[in-house]
Amino acid sequence: MSERQAGRRVTIKDVARRAGVSVATVSRVLGVSNYPVAAATRDRVMKVVRELDYVTNAHARSLAGGGTPTVAILMNNITGAAFAHVAKGVEGAATLRGWLSLVGTTGDDPERELALVNAMRQQGVAAVVLLGGAYDRTEYQTRMGRFARSLDAAGSHLVLVGRPPLEGDVPATTVNYDNEAGAYAMASHVLSAGHRRVLVLPGPAGLTTAQGRLKGARRAFDAYGVPFDPGLVRHGSYDYEHGFSAVREVLARGADFTAVLAGTDVVAAGATQALKVTGLRVPDDVSVAGYDDIPLASHVTPQLTTVHVPYEEMGRVALRAVADRRAGDVLAGPGAGRPAEAEHLVLGTHVVVRDSVRPPRPGR
Amino acid sequence: MSERQAGRRVTIKDVARRAGVSVATVSRVLGVSNYPVAAATRDRVMKVVRELDYVTNAHARSLAGGGTPTVAILMNNITGAAFAHVAKGVEGAATLRGWLSLVGTTGDDPERELALVNAMRQQGVAAVVLLGGAYDRTEYQTRMGRFARSLDAAGSHLVLVGRPPLEGDVPATTVNYDNEAGAYAMASHVLSAGHRRVLVLPGPAGLTTAQGRLKGARRAFDAYGVPFDPGLVRHGSYDYEHGFSAVREVLARGADFTAVLAGTDVVAAGATQALKVTGLRVPDDVSVAGYDDIPLASHVTPQLTTVHVPYEEMGRVALRAVADRRAGDVLAGPGAGRPAEAEHLVLGTHVVVRDSVRPPRPGR
Repeated sequence: MSERQAGRRVTIKDVARRAGVSVATVSRVLGVSNYPVAAATRDRVMKVVRELDYVTNAHARSLAGGGTPTVAILMNNITGAAFAHVAKGVEGAATLRGWLSLVGTTGDDPERELALVNAMRQQGVAAVVLLGGAYDRTEYQTRMGRFARSLDAAGSHLVLVGRPPLEGDVPATTVNYDNEAGAYAMASHVLSAGHRRVLVLPGPAGLTTAQGRLKGARRAFDAYGVPFDPGLVRHGSYDYEHGFSAVREVLARGADFTAVLAGTDVVAAGATQALKVTGLRVPDDVSVAGYDDIPLASHVTPQLTTVHVPYEEMGRVALRAVADRRAGDVLAGPGAGRPAEAEHLVLGTHVVVRDSVRPPRPGR
Repeated sequence: MSERQAGRRVTIKDVARRAGVSVATVSRVLGVSNYPVAAATRDRVMKVVRELDYVTNAHARSLAGGGTPTVAILMNNITGAAFAHVAKGVEGAATLRGWLSLVGTTGDDPERELALVNAMRQQGVAAVVLLGGAYDRTEYQTRMGRFARSLDAAGSHLVLVGRPPLEGDVPATTVNYDNEAGAYAMASHVLSAGHRRVLVLPGPAGLTTAQGRLKGARRAFDAYGVPFDPGLVRHGSYDYEHGFSAVREVLARGADFTAVLAGTDVVAAGATQALKVTGLRVPDDVSVAGYDDIPLASHVTPQLTTVHVPYEEMGRVALRAVADRRAGDVLAGPGAGRPAEAEHLVLGTHVVVRDSVRPPRPGR
């Protein structure tokens, strides 16, 4: 039965007294600063914190923005590996600062996204981080603009990761990766290996991410003077099943190709499986290139040559941008950070060469 | 500029009037019931909801427990595929009821878990769902008991998924799967194929999940009258790297084995890769069995024979238990649901036969 349960409200002084340390030390242990604390001291303080159930009070204010800042991450689907790594990056950088982070999933539903953004705003979170490609440019711009302004008005902040930047003067931070350049580099790698007939599986036609990956690939074909065949492009969702069925269908039509540019590593894994069950060897008969460089890329056989996207780093960069903006407000008062409001950060991508791409067999 | 921004608080009546529907219809559209609403009506109502920024008000109460119930899911690591599927199941069943769900990650840190549970309790969530195996039985029992009682006192509820049930009269719901039986079935499958020298990679020694998987395997050896060799057991984390390095190390020691019982599909993928780079074929030379049946299991080559764990179903079952308990309280008043408080639900597991296990080569 803790003192708190016995009715008296526990204060940080009670914790400090019982642990035999200063109040400053307790607040450092509770992580509202990054100040280092000896492990033994930390353990002793946390033991008292548990005994007195003190964290309850410390965190009572947390989601209300008064104490430990909290960041809300909203993604389409929690089982999507790529964005789970962004969330991991945000969480890592948040934990380092003693912040809390929460993830909500929208199931790709704008209404649910709206409900979650509003709920998080009402909870006074330090920032709402939205992950993932977007559909429908105009409706998207309108919706994001509303989110950005309503969060800003509430003293919170909108951060878009892996999404297109917003047009006009909108108070949001965008953290992106050079999607088109990655696709250009990957296609160039395949073309320079000698491939000329390439099946392209960019992803969902309406998704900005897929549009950028297709555009980057086409630019490479132009640069190499290789005619681009729209008949070898298959749009579809970013999943294993699409990679599998698209390849099966194109092979069934008797279409001839020596390489596959997959929109994601998962799509590449499905495409590879479809080639194998058809009796084609990867990369001996057909090369397969992925995109994202999630762990799966090095867990399949052959290991995928793919485009590395710094997902976890994007998450860390996003959280740091939020933290700096907040620090700026604290030091110079709200509004001081305004010039940084429409910050656009773009991280680089690069090709990771593994075993799934090699020159086409002579005669093909 | 919405009416709300103009200062007047928007009510559900404003939405109903402007959309030309009844207040009941608006509340149905906003998902506080499962009552079906025509798509056209839903679109019209949501358009008004957006225009008036009404969802803000509807969801202002949500995390405070007064309106849309919210469930908090806490997991060790958001990139862990198995528990991401439990979270997906919880979210699916929550969305079906118009509930919100949020995920927090603990990074396997008890202090962080405590901070998140307390923060969620303060937010008045309907339930806190803790996912994943647990270490240290006694400390774990104490900590969970505290969580369960403090959440119960706050009108919330603790749900443990994939964790050991709590001893004594603790107000918590446990949703589990038959972990040991799955390991027993998988080991029996491998032994009945004729394997006698089996490398076992159960997972982290202190983790209850790993202990159950090892115990199930040992029971199968006893049942088949095959001596179990503790020298062929390697504990380690549930990741690809452990599967890879454990197999490399055992092969380097010249130990002889014809099959690998991996603690998870990810460990199995690492083990398979290690065998391949050593020039051993799977399953021709060595068979490999996984556990979990996450998508990766059918994305690797050969596709893994593994144990199916109904992760997503566990999530749905957990959310339904919370919803029923809440409904019971609403209908019969708080306390009416008490008999169901210490509910233990255990879902079944079964072997999924794919391509990674076959009889050992003659002479081995």
